[in-house]
Amino acid sequence: MFKRILIANRGEIALRIIRCAREMDIETVVVYSTADKDSLPVMGANYAVCIGPESPAKSYLNQDAIIETALRMECDAIHPGYGFLSENAEFASKCEEHNITFIGPSSELISKMGDKQEARKLMMENGVRVVPGSKEIIKSLKEAKEVAKEIGYPVLIKASAGGGGRGMRKVFEEKDLAKMFKMAKAEAKAAFANDDMYIEKLVINPRHIEVQILADKYGNVVSLGERDCSIQKNNQKMLEESPACGLSDEKRREISDMAILAGKVSGYNSVGTCEFILDKDENFYFIEMNTRIQVEHPVTEAVSDVDLIRQQIRVAAGLKLDIKNEDVELRGHAIEFRICAKTPGVIKNLHIPSGFGVRIETHLYNGYEITPFYDPMIAKVIVRGRSRLEVIRRLRRVLEEMVIDGVETNVAFLHQLTYHPDFLKGSYDTGFYEKEHSKIESWIGEVLTLSKDA
Amino acid sequence: MFKRILIANRGEIALRIIRCAREMDIETVVVYSTADKDSLPVMGANYAVCIGPESPAKSYLNQDAIIETALRMECDAIHPGYGFLSENAEFASKCEEHNITFIGPSSELISKMGDKQEARKLMMENGVRVVPGSKEIIKSLKEAKEVAKEIGYPVLIKASAGGGGRGMRKVFEEKDLAKMFKMAKAEAKAAFANDDMYIEKLVINPRHIEVQILADKYGNVVSLGERDCSIQKNNQKMLEESPACGLSDEKRREISDMAILAGKVSGYNSVGTCEFILDKDENFYFIEMNTRIQVEHPVTEAVSDVDLIRQQIRVAAGLKLDIKNEDVELRGHAIEFRICAKTPGVIKNLHIPSGFGVRIETHLYNGYEITPFYDPMIAKVIVRGRSRLEVIRRLRRVLEEMVIDGVETNVAFLHQLTYHPDFLKGSYDTGFYEKEHSKIESWIGEVLTLSKDA
Repeated sequence: MFKRILIANRGEIALRIIRCAREMDIETVVVYSTADKDSLPVMGANYAVCIGPESPAKSYLNQDAIIETALRMECDAIHPGYGFLSENAEFASKCEEHNITFIGPSSELISKMGDKQEARKLMMENGVRVVPGSKEIIKSLKEAKEVAKEIGYPVLIKASAGGGGRGMRKVFEEKDLAKMFKMAKAEAKAAFANDDMYIEKLVINPRHIEVQILADKYGNVVSLGERDCSIQKNNQKMLEESPACGLSDEKRREISDMAILAGKVSGYNSVGTCEFILDKDENFYFIEMNTRIQVEHPVTEAVSDVDLIRQQIRVAAGLKLDIKNEDVELRGHAIEFRICAKTPGVIKNLHIPSGFGVRIETHLYNGYEITPFYDPMIAKVIVRGRSRLEVIRRLRRVLEEMVIDGVETNVAFLHQLTYHPDFLKGSYDTGFYEKEHSKIESWIGEVLTLSKDA
Repeated sequence: MFKRILIANRGEIALRIIRCAREMDIETVVVYSTADKDSLPVMGANYAVCIGPESPAKSYLNQDAIIETALRMECDAIHPGYGFLSENAEFASKCEEHNITFIGPSSELISKMGDKQEARKLMMENGVRVVPGSKEIIKSLKEAKEVAKEIGYPVLIKASAGGGGRGMRKVFEEKDLAKMFKMAKAEAKAAFANDDMYIEKLVINPRHIEVQILADKYGNVVSLGERDCSIQKNNQKMLEESPACGLSDEKRREISDMAILAGKVSGYNSVGTCEFILDKDENFYFIEMNTRIQVEHPVTEAVSDVDLIRQQIRVAAGLKLDIKNEDVELRGHAIEFRICAKTPGVIKNLHIPSGFGVRIETHLYNGYEITPFYDPMIAKVIVRGRSRLEVIRRLRRVLEEMVIDGVETNVAFLHQLTYHPDFLKGSYDTGFYEKEHSKIESWIGEVLTLSKDA
């Protein structure tokens, strides 16, 4: 097992990793930016090294400074957390060159799964269901028409080199195809100097279902069940839950088995997440593999009782998984709410609730300053219980009890969300937030006051 | 279901009940003494009513003031928590007279189970194994000799009206019996004006094993497994764990079944605990039934995922249990450590840890004043995990991370306790603390420093 690991991250996830490492008798070195000098991870790690100013590029993304620190501090391994360098194949490769274990999959796997077209092809060839569409680059408008007709409208035209929505067009009818194909190609050429195009079936407002997998270096792949992460604001998840509502046991097992297959055919060897979309008819399609620990991993921990960071460190150290698929018992229900600050500020009065079924992961403390430089997430509220309704009532109680004075947050919004009939029924998809958020916002104050009296 | 309940308690258990009631959409009225005016329960309840000065007799034990408040505030029910009035049959009876539901068993049951000789007799007659001894009052020294010979030395002479060790004598050999019998009788006469005597087998340093039961008003009794509470200082539990170490599955089931039988034959109808002692040869004997929620109930909640306060409120309201014996799944391991203040004082710097498998129940906050008037317990650390070793490592981490500045506590002692070889092996009995505490105390500083570096 590792003697000392470097944590190349900040905030709640750095604290989470420090706690886990301590429980495994592993020392920790946390690197930090000047903006984070008074943070809990800096106080909690065995050693803390300042590696640059607040700008992420100069600190948490500063690969050379991080590697240099790991070498100087004699660290065996680096944990990248999520975001920052966690899915950076170049960084993972640099770690490998310096004989430092990157706690995550190999750089080769990160790069293979990071190239979405390559990953898609690998999955298609190995029986993992992907969104129907072209296997190869579309060579002409004629071919585009044929492919679109075959898979059926609406379709999505996607640049091979694309990202962030550029070089992408939705086409609902054949009459628009020629124009959109031309526009997407032009945009891709301008943005990426590469106008290779793919066409896929467009699934409108699907559900976002993901499966947590665990894999070791000996070919063992275990699934810890799915999470529904469909409630998103601008592609940012707001909450996640497990199990997903309204799925039959058979469908649940199918998705889980598909994730295991995706792990096996890619030779995956760490903690990872297979993302699927699920359409109205319960058809599901593999979208991509996230090769890092995710923000929402505690939802799975709550129902499975498996410590995912511990497993991630164990398999990175070359240990075999100590859990088999047949040993996995998922129990009850869990929901995570992400608490975000809307403004920077100093925390003046903090009360973090607790109690049966409640876990709150946060790096906040009284007097802590939330700076504008990083992700606005300041706490994760993870609640579990025997039934989904019990969990929702517990979430309300926790949000009502929570006090975070000094910054504006989304706590009131999340509290009101728990009263939305579709959320209560567990009937929502990725279109939910856009369609319903203004209604939910209009409830704030009104219903909150009511619930405080009741 | 109740509309509004009065909480006749303070500290962490009052907060625990407020949280649960909120999750059940029940309003809360907390009564408090002047010493507790700035406490979290007072801030967290829907209503708070001051009922007297700091002296427990004038506030938390002031039955008339509590009943009067419940009536005036239109409460349907009173939750007594633990300690104070929680096992007071007279108080439960007053509640009944005023048509207020006492959240606990009926006054008749409290009185029946509170009279230990009566309870013992009921159990003996119904096949619940009790410590071998006399069924009736011992009439003469001659009879005492016969009984003692029959059950075998060592024996315990006990006053029927006894309590707090008075009127009680241990006898290891027959030659001492006459003298001890006389002394115990004289002491009992002086203390209780009643010198009725019983004789029981004396079990030396047994393990203290208790079983959590749930019962409703329709004869359903469910067991949620056992807790080992053998590590005690002056009969005060320091920590509790579930499952108990080293028991065979068969023995575990036998004890659990015996607790269900005890619940059934007594007509029990609330949350309760059957206490047993277990001797070196794994013989176990019923000692008594605790007819209240106990301090250590979260240990069982951690392994069973059943919210015991919620169940207690439900059955008090006349609902049927929504869980059957065959649905009970106990998973993993859990240990609770009781954090106590050795001195009064004001909390200056508080850091309550969190994370995977960690639940901390406390009424502390920054600036809170710990007064000398009540129980010194200031927090409960409940940790769960897949294995006992994982739990112990997590406990160490939590105790190392915890900061409670302003008062002296037993945190360092509990931290060192986790390094004791017998604790690590799970091999301890009620003699452990007395035998080992000075050794453990001598480690403080030394080992704590080591573990901080490592």
